[in-house]
Amino acid sequence: MNSQVIEGTYYSSVSCDQIKYAEDALICVDETGIIQRIVNHDDPQYGKIRRQADQNNSLTILASDEYLLPGLIDLHVHAPQWAQAGLALDKPLNEWLNTYTFPLESKFSDLNFSRRVYSQLVMEMVANGTTTVMFFGTIFNESNLVLAKQCSKFGLRGFIGKVAMDNPEQTPEYYRDLSAKQALLSTEEFIFAINELQAKNGGTLVPVITPRFVPSCTDELLAGLGKLAQKYDLPIQSHCSESDWEHNYAKERFKMHDAEVLDHFGLLTDRSVMAHGTMIDENDQQLFYKRQAAVAHCPISNVYFGNSVFPTKRMLEHGNKVGLGTDISGGYSPSLYRNMQQAVMSSQMLQDGVDQSISSNNRGVNNSRISIKNAFYLATRGGAEALHLKTGSIEVGMQADFQIVKSRLALLKIDPNDQFERLIYQTDRNDIKQVFIGGKLVYQN
Amino acid sequence: MNSQVIEGTYYSSVSCDQIKYAEDALICVDETGIIQRIVNHDDPQYGKIRRQADQNNSLTILASDEYLLPGLIDLHVHAPQWAQAGLALDKPLNEWLNTYTFPLESKFSDLNFSRRVYSQLVMEMVANGTTTVMFFGTIFNESNLVLAKQCSKFGLRGFIGKVAMDNPEQTPEYYRDLSAKQALLSTEEFIFAINELQAKNGGTLVPVITPRFVPSCTDELLAGLGKLAQKYDLPIQSHCSESDWEHNYAKERFKMHDAEVLDHFGLLTDRSVMAHGTMIDENDQQLFYKRQAAVAHCPISNVYFGNSVFPTKRMLEHGNKVGLGTDISGGYSPSLYRNMQQAVMSSQMLQDGVDQSISSNNRGVNNSRISIKNAFYLATRGGAEALHLKTGSIEVGMQADFQIVKSRLALLKIDPNDQFERLIYQTDRNDIKQVFIGGKLVYQN
Ligand SMILES: [Zn+2]
Ligand SMILES: [Zn+2]
Repeated sequence: MNSQVIEGTYYSSVSCDQIKYAEDALICVDETGIIQRIVNHDDPQYGKIRRQADQNNSLTILASDEYLLPGLIDLHVHAPQWAQAGLALDKPLNEWLNTYTFPLESKFSDLNFSRRVYSQLVMEMVANGTTTVMFFGTIFNESNLVLAKQCSKFGLRGFIGKVAMDNPEQTPEYYRDLSAKQALLSTEEFIFAINELQAKNGGTLVPVITPRFVPSCTDELLAGLGKLAQKYDLPIQSHCSESDWEHNYAKERFKMHDAEVLDHFGLLTDRSVMAHGTMIDENDQQLFYKRQAAVAHCPISNVYFGNSVFPTKRMLEHGNKVGLGTDISGGYSPSLYRNMQQAVMSSQMLQDGVDQSISSNNRGVNNSRISIKNAFYLATRGGAEALHLKTGSIEVGMQADFQIVKSRLALLKIDPNDQFERLIYQTDRNDIKQVFIGGKLVYQN
Repeated sequence: MNSQVIEGTYYSSVSCDQIKYAEDALICVDETGIIQRIVNHDDPQYGKIRRQADQNNSLTILASDEYLLPGLIDLHVHAPQWAQAGLALDKPLNEWLNTYTFPLESKFSDLNFSRRVYSQLVMEMVANGTTTVMFFGTIFNESNLVLAKQCSKFGLRGFIGKVAMDNPEQTPEYYRDLSAKQALLSTEEFIFAINELQAKNGGTLVPVITPRFVPSCTDELLAGLGKLAQKYDLPIQSHCSESDWEHNYAKERFKMHDAEVLDHFGLLTDRSVMAHGTMIDENDQQLFYKRQAAVAHCPISNVYFGNSVFPTKRMLEHGNKVGLGTDISGGYSPSLYRNMQQAVMSSQMLQDGVDQSISSNNRGVNNSRISIKNAFYLATRGGAEALHLKTGSIEVGMQADFQIVKSRLALLKIDPNDQFERLIYQTDRNDIKQVFIGGKLVYQN
């Protein structure tokens, strides 16, 4: 028995460079919110299933200019920074952190302010077609729980971390965990609190072990967080070699690369999602591969703070796990469409090079360009694999996390591959008509 | 006597790196659509002028989260290519032209199709806050006049060119002017037709001399177009050194740079707007400066087809004339906000470099980053200067070409400079509430 049937044309990622589509298929969702069956138009049972759904008032019919896509997965968001999205992007990372970001995050001890920001943020993400998000919160658990409740309210799949940061040399006194011990205790409390919320609401929340990044943590904290991740078998998020500065910091303090430091402390596992990685070299990449740790590629943010382009194509060809992140507010846009576009653009710029004064054969890095299908994979399947979630594609057995997107530009009859490319380039917030999570309609434009 | 007064906070570009703003000013527009006076809040006459406007029902009051900005100026759009915006961006320029673009443009002999595409395009541009556009049409004059009429209908300031292209070696038989003579005759006819339309409608249209680009024109056509530009004292548009291919083509055929070829044929004047210029070197730049010719910088399109980053900062510091273009459909987005953002991002990538394997001090080109204020200048004043138009800034004597923009993100009290940056990063189509051209409301969201 289907609780709901959607009739329409859908696109879904099959692998890193392949998409699947079918025109006028029936996507049947069972009462637990799982895709139970997909019936193509030429299936002999099509008519019967459609009729039944229609009789039960459980049939949603897409218009000819509407398309069904999987909900998108955002692997890297600093929830409190939504309040400053689009600000101070001309500042170097250090000034950006100390003059804007830390003062802002420290305001989240105020729960009313937290509620205002987080309710708007969660709404904004869903309105942009995003159905799963991995969040950095702040150091304040009460505020992090406000975020968790906002996720529950919208049904958003939220992976949420209490930010841990105790290194007095790299964090301001007004916004810092009191000690490694306190940070660990507070992290453990947060895990319990989320589990409790889950038990009560039956939600879709997961607590995440979250060292801010290596520079802001003492060795004791890094080691303790590694142990907590193991003890509770939890996902881990942090940053890795985001910029020249971060990359060099690890080399100076530990005589190791950032990736090796994280690994040393038990923070690089098959449940790890490390943001940026713009500076990880081929050894680091091997280590990520060996541990099956994922990178959250944040193409817009990397332009401002990354100091170079993340070698996405190299990572994908090697079989590394990669997904996509907006990195609010290092990235100014909450839209993963915008980030898919920028992922392709940045990769093209890596391939072509940027300096006209260099001859064309030495200007860029060969074989670096990714396709729009690669980018779509990152924002859907790639993200789901990083989080070990059954979502991000339209297939039997997957969560019914969907968006219905309207194409504004129907001036030419074009083939389905071109139509797909156009959708990814042209969809903005206002073209997203409906969003479903676990089969439930959670947003209507 | 003011026909209309707008009360609110406005931003306007003063110079390449300076903006002006005033909170709660009165912008007074006379009955010819010109800004006649700007009254700051502390002016003793403020109360009186406001009262009068209120009594005459000519006062528009902006809400506290709304801002008045000048309408934007798009220096480079291929109008027919709107039908394929977002398609085939993974193809090299040559394949893109021959497989997608030329076949599409040839369809515009169909006037019904022209009407469908052009009415949607003009609406879309205005809805994105653009009030002046320099268009490439097609080789078909009847279709170009459809575009002209659509511009008139919306009040858009349209600079429109009949595309001239006659070189059998670089253009397909099905889409080519029959000969240089015919192309020149047809260009002249188009000039008359636009002037006639102007005389009838009292519109804001200007015909533009438009050699597609050097490769698609014979010497005879290039020379003839140069003469026509002089004879009728008209603006000229074309492309210049857009990519390695175009740059090298000119060197092979003429033993000169593209800029020098254009100059040789009288096509580089103070009324010229040349698109892209990604490969122009410092000599070419000098020549542009000497002739007071402008570049239409098209940052999104350049990512796909430019093969390197246009050195915007270098050009601005040298005092060269530069404005901004979307280059539909080499650029997929009709929004100049998106192009302002990309202009900053591309310049940052030029400065930082893209290849992580190069050490940070050799990776990029120093002093290349432009600011969001630079980008705003390009999209407003810079464009107006390129076109010799009195628009693009909120100042006495300027055309009242405005947009009212709503800020969605009012979570923090921030200073006016930060607010300006945020507006440019966060405004999308749907945040643009009203657009005025020459004081007339032409779009309401
Ligand atoms: Zn981050
Ligand atoms: Zn062009």
